[in-house]
Amino acid sequence: MQLGSKLASYNLISFMVHDLLLAAAYVSDAQYSRNVPFETSPQTIRLYYFYNHWTMRAATNFFIFVDLSLALFEEPALFPLPFLATSIAEVLCLTAFFGRLIHFAKVTPQTVFWKDTKNICIMVTIVLTLVDLIVYGSLEAINIHSVRWSRALRPVFLINFPESRQIRRAFRSIRNTLPDILYVFLLFMFNMLIFSLMALKLFGDRGLKTVEGSPYFTNILEIIFDLYVLVTTANSPDVMMPAYDFNRWYSLYFITYIIINTYIFMSVFLAVVYNNYRKHLKNEIRKLVYLKHYKMVEAFNLLKVKVGAEFVVKEAEWRRLTKVVVPDISSSHLELLLRISDEGQKGHVDKTNFLRLADLLNIQVITISVRRHPLEAWMPRVYKSSVSLFIQKVVQHRIFVWIYDAIILLNAIFIALDEKNPFISYAEWLFLSLYVIEILLKLYTYEPKAYFGRKQFWNWFDTLIIIAALVATVANATIQSARKYNSQQILDIVLVLRILRLLRVIISIQRFRVIVTTLINIGPTILTFGGLVLVVYYTFAIIGMEVFQGKVRFFDPNVTTPDALVCGNPALKDAAFARDRYCKNNFNDLAASFVVLIELTVVNQWHIIAEGFSLVTHPTAKLYFIFFHIVVVILIVNIFIAFILEAFFVAYSLDKSDIETAIERKIQELGVGVQEEEVQDGELIDHMDTNDNGFNEDDGDQKRKALKGSYFRIASKKYKTVDALLQRMFESEIAPEDDGPSLDEILSFSPSDIYPKNPNFENSA
Amino acid sequence: MQLGSKLASYNLISFMVHDLLLAAAYVSDAQYSRNVPFETSPQTIRLYYFYNHWTMRAATNFFIFVDLSLALFEEPALFPLPFLATSIAEVLCLTAFFGRLIHFAKVTPQTVFWKDTKNICIMVTIVLTLVDLIVYGSLEAINIHSVRWSRALRPVFLINFPESRQIRRAFRSIRNTLPDILYVFLLFMFNMLIFSLMALKLFGDRGLKTVEGSPYFTNILEIIFDLYVLVTTANSPDVMMPAYDFNRWYSLYFITYIIINTYIFMSVFLAVVYNNYRKHLKNEIRKLVYLKHYKMVEAFNLLKVKVGAEFVVKEAEWRRLTKVVVPDISSSHLELLLRISDEGQKGHVDKTNFLRLADLLNIQVITISVRRHPLEAWMPRVYKSSVSLFIQKVVQHRIFVWIYDAIILLNAIFIALDEKNPFISYAEWLFLSLYVIEILLKLYTYEPKAYFGRKQFWNWFDTLIIIAALVATVANATIQSARKYNSQQILDIVLVLRILRLLRVIISIQRFRVIVTTLINIGPTILTFGGLVLVVYYTFAIIGMEVFQGKVRFFDPNVTTPDALVCGNPALKDAAFARDRYCKNNFNDLAASFVVLIELTVVNQWHIIAEGFSLVTHPTAKLYFIFFHIVVVILIVNIFIAFILEAFFVAYSLDKSDIETAIERKIQELGVGVQEEEVQDGELIDHMDTNDNGFNEDDGDQKRKALKGSYFRIASKKYKTVDALLQRMFESEIAPEDDGPSLDEILSFSPSDIYPKNPNFENSA
Repeated sequence: MQLGSKLASYNLISFMVHDLLLAAAYVSDAQYSRNVPFETSPQTIRLYYFYNHWTMRAATNFFIFVDLSLALFEEPALFPLPFLATSIAEVLCLTAFFGRLIHFAKVTPQTVFWKDTKNICIMVTIVLTLVDLIVYGSLEAINIHSVRWSRALRPVFLINFPESRQIRRAFRSIRNTLPDILYVFLLFMFNMLIFSLMALKLFGDRGLKTVEGSPYFTNILEIIFDLYVLVTTANSPDVMMPAYDFNRWYSLYFITYIIINTYIFMSVFLAVVYNNYRKHLKNEIRKLVYLKHYKMVEAFNLLKVKVGAEFVVKEAEWRRLTKVVVPDISSSHLELLLRISDEGQKGHVDKTNFLRLADLLNIQVITISVRRHPLEAWMPRVYKSSVSLFIQKVVQHRIFVWIYDAIILLNAIFIALDEKNPFISYAEWLFLSLYVIEILLKLYTYEPKAYFGRKQFWNWFDTLIIIAALVATVANATIQSARKYNSQQILDIVLVLRILRLLRVIISIQRFRVIVTTLINIGPTILTFGGLVLVVYYTFAIIGMEVFQGKVRFFDPNVTTPDALVCGNPALKDAAFARDRYCKNNFNDLAASFVVLIELTVVNQWHIIAEGFSLVTHPTAKLYFIFFHIVVVILIVNIFIAFILEAFFVAYSLDKSDIETAIERKIQELGVGVQEEEVQDGELIDHMDTNDNGFNEDDGDQKRKALKGSYFRIASKKYKTVDALLQRMFESEIAPEDDGPSLDEILSFSPSDIYPKNPNFENSA
Repeated sequence: MQLGSKLASYNLISFMVHDLLLAAAYVSDAQYSRNVPFETSPQTIRLYYFYNHWTMRAATNFFIFVDLSLALFEEPALFPLPFLATSIAEVLCLTAFFGRLIHFAKVTPQTVFWKDTKNICIMVTIVLTLVDLIVYGSLEAINIHSVRWSRALRPVFLINFPESRQIRRAFRSIRNTLPDILYVFLLFMFNMLIFSLMALKLFGDRGLKTVEGSPYFTNILEIIFDLYVLVTTANSPDVMMPAYDFNRWYSLYFITYIIINTYIFMSVFLAVVYNNYRKHLKNEIRKLVYLKHYKMVEAFNLLKVKVGAEFVVKEAEWRRLTKVVVPDISSSHLELLLRISDEGQKGHVDKTNFLRLADLLNIQVITISVRRHPLEAWMPRVYKSSVSLFIQKVVQHRIFVWIYDAIILLNAIFIALDEKNPFISYAEWLFLSLYVIEILLKLYTYEPKAYFGRKQFWNWFDTLIIIAALVATVANATIQSARKYNSQQILDIVLVLRILRLLRVIISIQRFRVIVTTLINIGPTILTFGGLVLVVYYTFAIIGMEVFQGKVRFFDPNVTTPDALVCGNPALKDAAFARDRYCKNNFNDLAASFVVLIELTVVNQWHIIAEGFSLVTHPTAKLYFIFFHIVVVILIVNIFIAFILEAFFVAYSLDKSDIETAIERKIQELGVGVQEEEVQDGELIDHMDTNDNGFNEDDGDQKRKALKGSYFRIASKKYKTVDALLQRMFESEIAPEDDGPSLDEILSFSPSDIYPKNPNFENSA
């Protein structure tokens, strides 16, 4: 989540820009300025900062979490609580949401607030939920059981609070794709109907039987369902076998069907979704970029003073502004940014450089303070002794890494062997101590704060895994020797941790590290999809629980009573659902429902689950499952694939931006740069030492004085997202003199404006 | 196939260019010219034309077809033939291939011929096949049965003859992708191993049982196989159920596994394949474009004469050249091209226009001769009578189309109803006659040659379906009344045809027509993938037949002897393979093998098939199926999806090229244009008539005289391929004065040269 929140802040450039504009108004004292399109009384600005304060955001997220979690405690509950308790909790959450909304209204102009669908959505949902609560409560009081339908609306809060920008974008993407995909879908359905009709005529009168002995392809509705399932390939080749057994030529019918519907139509769905995804993504980014430009120009206009022929912002104003926007900026970082913005050290920043300020602040320049190893400060004689230096040399050597890789592989073999053997279980202690020694040695050699830097993912990973394994193993051994009994949970955790250590081998191989780093970098955005999926799952789970709860019951696998064999429902006699022992795939609580929905997303055997639940309720229940498939597999999974494709293509064509290059050049010019590779390979201190010496020799240089003791590097270029790249591309198209389109024009950009009319070679790349 | 061959010729621009260069040499009589990098003796040129003659190509394709078909007649045979017969046929084919190769050597410079891997491949394969034939024959003579391994090499001929450029490109694409995909695959395997180890430790000692009652997750090799199958989702959720039943938290293990391996890794595979596909496609197209430019410049140099300050080609030379290259060009088409190339009618063509010649010839200008309806010529009075004109008006009216759409939908309902009812079977005759009347009316109204134009796909479709249905229905009725018996095959055909007619409704809806047209347009290239898949399937089928033939036998579904229930192999007792009645999924002949391989491509239940065949042979047989999955599903299916995505993106950003615009402008300027839409909607004649009148009034215009009686239109822009678009994009980058890189440079272009170093907004589109 550390990484996630960082990237989020990186993406929300326009938020930072809005802050900048407000801060400019604050700094310039230009209250009620004609140029600022909103109130800028100190109170409003304070309210705005308070609205964006992390505690307020955390509180909102907490209430959203509580509200969604309520489904765990309401009927059908995983942990039952009385209706009174859950309804009080819900009313509390609603109050919190309402308060947040009021707060937002206070910091937003009225017209903007009421135009925003988000706010209307939240208000309507709050009212509906209250109505539902009252109706349900009153009916419950007179012992009439009704449906808590408003629970399916709860994800609205997750979508519509401003923190969920990415989820909203994904939803907009889906909504925008719908018209395009609708026609493809209709054609696909029409095609399926024609094939169904053909199947009815070709196979219906043959008197064929399925493996289960039921009649084969005799009912048109069942044929349509079977052929829809065949598109998802879940009943291939079973659905073909009776016809194929009868006459081998009939296989051609099914092969044609699969080629057209599974391969071609499903790819077309992906193409349509992908194309729309890119188109709308670009449009949004373009809006963001122009909005940013617009607001930066506004901020500049608030602070500008005339020096000579041009308008500039004075250094003092600039410093105050930056301090207001990023209160916790380090003074060396501020100094670096000023050096870049005020190239000629004239004491003021010109327009071009001022407009870059938001970008400069958004680029993660990591300040690396050069510190001596604490041990060196504490007992320099010992730490610098020849034995100590030799140890440090060894630890920094490549062979040290190789030896530990070999140890890990040996460990893997031991894990694979039977652990009942006492020798092997002792070996585990040996390995564990070896890993602990490794970490201690590294902490001895490298400066601990640098070793556990914010970007040192693998060092953190390594240390946490080892510490957790150590704690869990010791805990288990203690319990075992005290009570002669293994705690199952602890043992499982120990096992998983033990095996996760093997992942470390990956980072020793450069090619692997690159792939893994790319995957880790897109991780945060994958979490966005997690949010999207959660929203859809939640709604489907609530509906599923209302419809299917208690229809199917789970019995212990060892119980073989007739009731257990049909999952407690006689309607399932002879059904594949009971035969495959799917009884635990039910909607009897939220967690179980989620697992079923995941299984449906994976698609395989979904027809058996759909068949099972339609047997215990009504044949139309299949529609629930078909609809789920359309929404989740055809839309969301395709958007997910589109996102992964785009992220990888961007990774392939990624390069440093002009601004980053400018910062880096400046960093190098000032001689305070550190190569990223050095940090990754743990050679940081080594390099620092050398550099430090050179630095001291030359301390007459005034420029360097302010930055002394600090080193900088730009955060890895791999930590970039599709958004960031697209933003940069649009920016390169806007000249600094250009004031851009008006605010209204910007807000009404449409995706069709973007596509260049005359494609050239570049844009099909 | 009509469409396919056209598009192929459109793509093979460089072939046309080579022809042009040869023809230029021929026309200019410049034998042994210093400028031409090959011999141009009249004999060589004649040999070259003969090599490219359609009869020679057809013969080669025929022999390739025969050679591949031999597997149907060899053991295990669908139609057994003695070894002597098949071996004689094979030797014949090999002789033909050898002859074709010799012929190719005669028209190619020696150095080029021997550098080409294609030719070496063919020769080696011929020799190996002969060796194998002799060894197998001799062993057979002394009754030792050995393996005809060289049969697996037969697809080499399909790949390596120059007609299969697209298949070769797909193979090169796969080969080029391999290094990139290898590392992702290794990481994926490593990840799978770690998860397997975890599964062994977490679930192995629990004493859990699968639904079949076998131990759950106790053997590491079986776990690896099960988890590989889980990546393909084929055993989800079954593989999870025992652990999930035991403890619901264990579902997290499987969910994590599926998210990482199925969703993320499989998308990464697609991304890597797609990225490479685009990169290498572009490189090849760039080579083609430069090669074309190079050759066109050579041709120009052969024919140029100095007129005034610049070199030009005389009109007479130009005409001769064009006639040699395209002997069957219509004189009006030639005239049109000359008007475009010699804009100022100066009697010569300059360099810029000459270099466009190949493109001009490649653009399909459809010459539409304006002919009166034959009936009008035959009996003008009757045809122009008011009744006749009224009928024509009715047929051309929109309502006529709507009425027939309604009839088709009504027909669909009748088809869905039970046809045992005699009333309904009579109704079928009614519908059939209505359709016949429709076609006759249309032929009465529209000029038949225009109605059955080359691009009038739907008219052809319509008429063929109706005629076939008519013939089949009549044939069936005859047989039925004569022998009181329905021929199953004819009935099936009638049924399918009857239902295919429903497809016509699609073309009435504009949005559907667009999607369908795009799909039909990429059809030919999809056939390329058919070729690619055929090659891989054939090799796998031959290997499969050698390994698995006769191990599993198919019994009639009604036979329930114990032998039949285990597919004739006791090893399959209790196996899911026999329980699901998969006995017909075997490798006992080529056709059956292909069906199995298609089922494996569809993926679902592939583990049951793999398990079945490993039970009847050896556990390592599973490797055959895993390897098949990697090659076909991970590589080929992903390339197929990449192709469909690219084709759709190109379709979204498609526009007319400069040259096409030039031709169209000229066509419009000369007043001989016809809008495509008019042709599609069947309004051609109407428009022609009006236009024709205007044409006659103005016949003093000299320009139009030569073109009189002809109308032109550019073939639909939708009929374009990714290749064509990319070619155009590269061409726009080459100035006509630029002679481009040297031949050697062109041939050694590498894909990494293409990628622009500094991405701008355009190239990430």
